[in-house]
Amino acid sequence: MAVGILNDKNEILARLEAQTRTGDPPEALIKRMQDLLKKTMDKAGITAIRHLGIGCPGILDRKKGLVLFSNNFHWENVPLASIFRRHMDIPIYMENDANCAALGEYLAGSGKRYDPMLMVTLGTGIGGGLIIHNKLYRGKSGNANIIGHITLSPSGGQQCSCGRTGCFETYASVSALVRMAEEAAGTHPDSLLAKAQKASHLNGKNIFEAIHKGDRAACMVFKDFVFYLSEGIADLINLLEPQAIILGGAISAQGNTLLDPLVSLVKDKIYCGPQSMPVILTSGLGNDAGIIGAACLDEFQ
Amino acid sequence: MAVGILNDKNEILARLEAQTRTGDPPEALIKRMQDLLKKTMDKAGITAIRHLGIGCPGILDRKKGLVLFSNNFHWENVPLASIFRRHMDIPIYMENDANCAALGEYLAGSGKRYDPMLMVTLGTGIGGGLIIHNKLYRGKSGNANIIGHITLSPSGGQQCSCGRTGCFETYASVSALVRMAEEAAGTHPDSLLAKAQKASHLNGKNIFEAIHKGDRAACMVFKDFVFYLSEGIADLINLLEPQAIILGGAISAQGNTLLDPLVSLVKDKIYCGPQSMPVILTSGLGNDAGIIGAACLDEFQ
Repeated sequence: MAVGILNDKNEILARLEAQTRTGDPPEALIKRMQDLLKKTMDKAGITAIRHLGIGCPGILDRKKGLVLFSNNFHWENVPLASIFRRHMDIPIYMENDANCAALGEYLAGSGKRYDPMLMVTLGTGIGGGLIIHNKLYRGKSGNANIIGHITLSPSGGQQCSCGRTGCFETYASVSALVRMAEEAAGTHPDSLLAKAQKASHLNGKNIFEAIHKGDRAACMVFKDFVFYLSEGIADLINLLEPQAIILGGAISAQGNTLLDPLVSLVKDKIYCGPQSMPVILTSGLGNDAGIIGAACLDEFQ
Repeated sequence: MAVGILNDKNEILARLEAQTRTGDPPEALIKRMQDLLKKTMDKAGITAIRHLGIGCPGILDRKKGLVLFSNNFHWENVPLASIFRRHMDIPIYMENDANCAALGEYLAGSGKRYDPMLMVTLGTGIGGGLIIHNKLYRGKSGNANIIGHITLSPSGGQQCSCGRTGCFETYASVSALVRMAEEAAGTHPDSLLAKAQKASHLNGKNIFEAIHKGDRAACMVFKDFVFYLSEGIADLINLLEPQAIILGGAISAQGNTLLDPLVSLVKDKIYCGPQSMPVILTSGLGNDAGIIGAACLDEFQ
């Protein structure tokens, strides 16, 4: 978890991070969040804040301030905002963390001035946030943009944790990349992938090291990964035709290694040709995007 | 093609239809459109209209009034609005026909009062239109909502006319239903499907007759069709979480035969559970939806 204190210009004055322990009961975790907030205020040299914005993973009831379900924390029906309100007499806003990141990129990052703007976060899963008409697009219950769960293969695809098969995130998330690399390491015992796996375990970092060294197995895995990513991105363009797509998550640090082959594939797949092609960029703010977006929620209710 | 004259209450005072001949050069077809407009005005007993709204299939440059590409008419770069303007000194608006139908359903049909509202038209292909924040959602170049071309099977699926494989419309359009029924007729020579095929050729009408009579081959085809439709609809809900989805096209006349199994499957597939489930309805206006939507384009620019 990360806390940031922002000034009126959306600049981060101070920020602190701490590990979340997913086994913690809600009250204990929220207590630690409050302690971290207090420390961050001390670091910024301030004694009061005007409002609090909370970005949280999971399925939320934003208006009631409830976390209906969070896979990451094993939470169900946790009144996150109410618990904060017991100790703070200021407006408290809550929003899905992917939406906060999208808002941050739109206000202060790579997505500045693009509308519609779609953020696609490639992590353990695939998350997303969408700006339309200068507003956060939320849908009926506030839980739209479940980008990881559009299916690429409803019959016979990879089993997804959501119950369906072949969801986008089973092919184009970091977890999917690792799974494909593990399979390739098994079938290519002389590859750098196999050596990295023997040394410890495969992760985004050592997989991309192998790719950058030209390891054939790793490059084949990356080619497949980008193929599937391009299929999902082409679908999103056909549907939403955004002005810009911002790729977030740790993998976005790969920059043009990721963007060049992706853009090249996507161009050939979109239905309406060049006029529909958005700018595709990597995140400009990294982890700060979510902090900035959360802090600006007061203007995006 | 169809022309309608509407009053201020969005009521159709007169409407006329004529066949389009797809081989016609643009000028000849547009001349016939203008003649049909004149006849419809005569039928309504009026001599002048305040504005003209045109709903047109294909990829458009709405602001320039250009049909960039129309598969149906084999048109490329046709200045449709300019040709009309030569003869008429009134505002002329042009919009994709699927967007017009969505707007019509939103203003006067099944989609009334739902926002976001998604219309999905099941025909030769699959088209769509989306209302967000009381506006037509158009995307970057005005050609968003290419719903038929989200992929359900990027590797090894049905070849699609767009160049990709496994697009939604290769599984859940009327053309797809007919293709699946033809295959089933081949493997089930004693089925009603096979008999209908021998008598003439399979189409939506005789396929649904076989379904309603309980023909086993036809029911299996319909089950597969609804499965694929439910996959695409679940994807659209996960992404957009609309308040309502309106199903259009001739197949929507099937009402609960289509809706009951579809809703039942979709409910189990959406990521965020019951709170995300939209109302799913069939079109209330049929072909009039596009006429009403086109006529109201002046307020939805």
